[in-house]
Amino acid sequence: MANVSTDEAMRRAIALAARGLGTTSPNPVVGCVLLDPSGEVVGEGFHAYTGGPHAEIVALAQAGERAKGGTAVVTLEPCNHTGRTGPCAQALIQAGVSRVVVAVSDPNPVASGGAHTLREAGVEVVTGVRAAEAEAGNIAWLTSVRRGWPYVTWKYAATLDGRSAAADGTSMWITSEAARMDVHALRGTVDAVLAGVGTVLADDPRLTARNLRDGSLAIRQPLRVVVDSSGRTPQQARVRDGAARTWVATADEVGADGVGRVDLPALLAALDRRGVRSVLLEGGPTLAGAFLAAGLVDRVIGYVAPKLLGAGPTALSGAGVTTIAEIIELDFVDITQVGPDLRFTAVPRNREG
Amino acid sequence: MANVSTDEAMRRAIALAARGLGTTSPNPVVGCVLLDPSGEVVGEGFHAYTGGPHAEIVALAQAGERAKGGTAVVTLEPCNHTGRTGPCAQALIQAGVSRVVVAVSDPNPVASGGAHTLREAGVEVVTGVRAAEAEAGNIAWLTSVRRGWPYVTWKYAATLDGRSAAADGTSMWITSEAARMDVHALRGTVDAVLAGVGTVLADDPRLTARNLRDGSLAIRQPLRVVVDSSGRTPQQARVRDGAARTWVATADEVGADGVGRVDLPALLAALDRRGVRSVLLEGGPTLAGAFLAAGLVDRVIGYVAPKLLGAGPTALSGAGVTTIAEIIELDFVDITQVGPDLRFTAVPRNREG
Repeated sequence: MANVSTDEAMRRAIALAARGLGTTSPNPVVGCVLLDPSGEVVGEGFHAYTGGPHAEIVALAQAGERAKGGTAVVTLEPCNHTGRTGPCAQALIQAGVSRVVVAVSDPNPVASGGAHTLREAGVEVVTGVRAAEAEAGNIAWLTSVRRGWPYVTWKYAATLDGRSAAADGTSMWITSEAARMDVHALRGTVDAVLAGVGTVLADDPRLTARNLRDGSLAIRQPLRVVVDSSGRTPQQARVRDGAARTWVATADEVGADGVGRVDLPALLAALDRRGVRSVLLEGGPTLAGAFLAAGLVDRVIGYVAPKLLGAGPTALSGAGVTTIAEIIELDFVDITQVGPDLRFTAVPRNREG
Repeated sequence: MANVSTDEAMRRAIALAARGLGTTSPNPVVGCVLLDPSGEVVGEGFHAYTGGPHAEIVALAQAGERAKGGTAVVTLEPCNHTGRTGPCAQALIQAGVSRVVVAVSDPNPVASGGAHTLREAGVEVVTGVRAAEAEAGNIAWLTSVRRGWPYVTWKYAATLDGRSAAADGTSMWITSEAARMDVHALRGTVDAVLAGVGTVLADDPRLTARNLRDGSLAIRQPLRVVVDSSGRTPQQARVRDGAARTWVATADEVGADGVGRVDLPALLAALDRRGVRSVLLEGGPTLAGAFLAAGLVDRVIGYVAPKLLGAGPTALSGAGVTTIAEIIELDFVDITQVGPDLRFTAVPRNREG
């Protein structure tokens, strides 16, 4: 590979990092590109799975002696602690790397300090290169570590007029197979999938990440969480099959809000303690409304089919808005066609994370 | 201007034609480019306003003697009749044009036959060049002339969850100023704007095409039509001000359907007799539902704000769909961001026009 600038190397490192999405949690995704003193790429790596080697270690192993005097370009500040693997900061020092270029500092109090350790050892450290891009790639992990509860994505599917089922309750299928495949891929990137007991009783969903062509399960399955205040999830519900772990979160176990429903901040705190960094909130409208009313949604992904119903349940209800001044404002960050459908991604306006 | 191919000239003619959109009705939009025998552009024109000269006449006047032996590239078959202006086919013959390239044949029984007249006079006539593109540019006029009633565009504005107002009825403003300016531009391209009496009573809209910056009215205003079965439109309603013509269409005048509402096919036939080729259906949900249920919507344009309400009136109701198998299917033909909002254009699946 030809000589590259550290900026180009960071772009490559960010792309490498993304390959780990869905298999590294509760760790972040990280990518690393090693350049020798002349700027030639001599090693590449990413953190591929929980407990596996960190990105820097993979890249160093590939580079061997050629790392000496070179530059490590890494999406996240190298770790400073001995966890499942040894500290990356030490490994970089031992390999004789003379410069480390970092996109984002590590907010994790246990692992941070890598930059300090490197500087103490005489290694030049530059931070903030392509930081916004690297942040976006690690948004769920960074947000959850910084504030102490998981990053919540509300996903829904609806018609143009905002309905999730026809007047008689039938809903299979409003969106296309292409959109549903996209949802299964999305499930594969999160740690937990949440649904309300109403949705479980009405639709009996599996909430697994599957290959829709042959029905096969993805290797890694998110935790299935049923928000079920009074424990009404039937024993024979599909969500309780053996395909993935399931947690029926009751108000008794989690704690109740003022009206006896599962307390949502307590639920998210409990998920955080279980190592859940990212949550996909799927159905139904009431649970989504409760999350939105509490300001607990970080991102909305909507699959909108070019169809009209004119009657039937809406995708969202009870979000705590009664007049136009209280409307929940977002910003579109992406609008894409997925098969015949439209997928948008939007984030709440004026909020961090 | 350099020599151009007839294909390039047709592309230019289609672009010229579009400049007339909104001011030529009940005539079509037409563009014309004249090439001399060497392929040099010697004249251009478009039909700019009702009663004004046709595209071919404008281009011939510009070309003068240089049209002799040349090619006329025109988006619609030159007319053969003497209406407000003389027949274009004769004008082209008299100018000595030796070849006429046409995109779309004229479906109007009164005006058609131009190609025949030209051929009789020894002029070579080619049709079908960039026909799909030219059709799209003239879709409202072509559709309405072919089937005898106006082309209907349903326009609505809503939140992501399909609501057009908050629970207390407040709705100003769900969409951005950019989206509302786009709507006013859209109104400027149609012959009539339709609203139900419910919308008039609730929102008291003006239904004019205005410049939102200074409030000034567009020179040409669409006919304002209130669909008002039992004549409840107040005398002091804004829609009755002097800014544009208004027709309060009652069931008594138009004819009633089985339940005493204005009969919609009869309404469209009446509009057709008034020279209306294109209708913009705006509010409310019930009127839109009735048009959709009757299969009378040719195009849907939705302005979707990245906002959520979770309660309040929906943009559409009563479209005659009770179960998923009856869902109204469309295809997206355009998805664009307008300011912070999203605008989509969709057409019913498997329908002509």
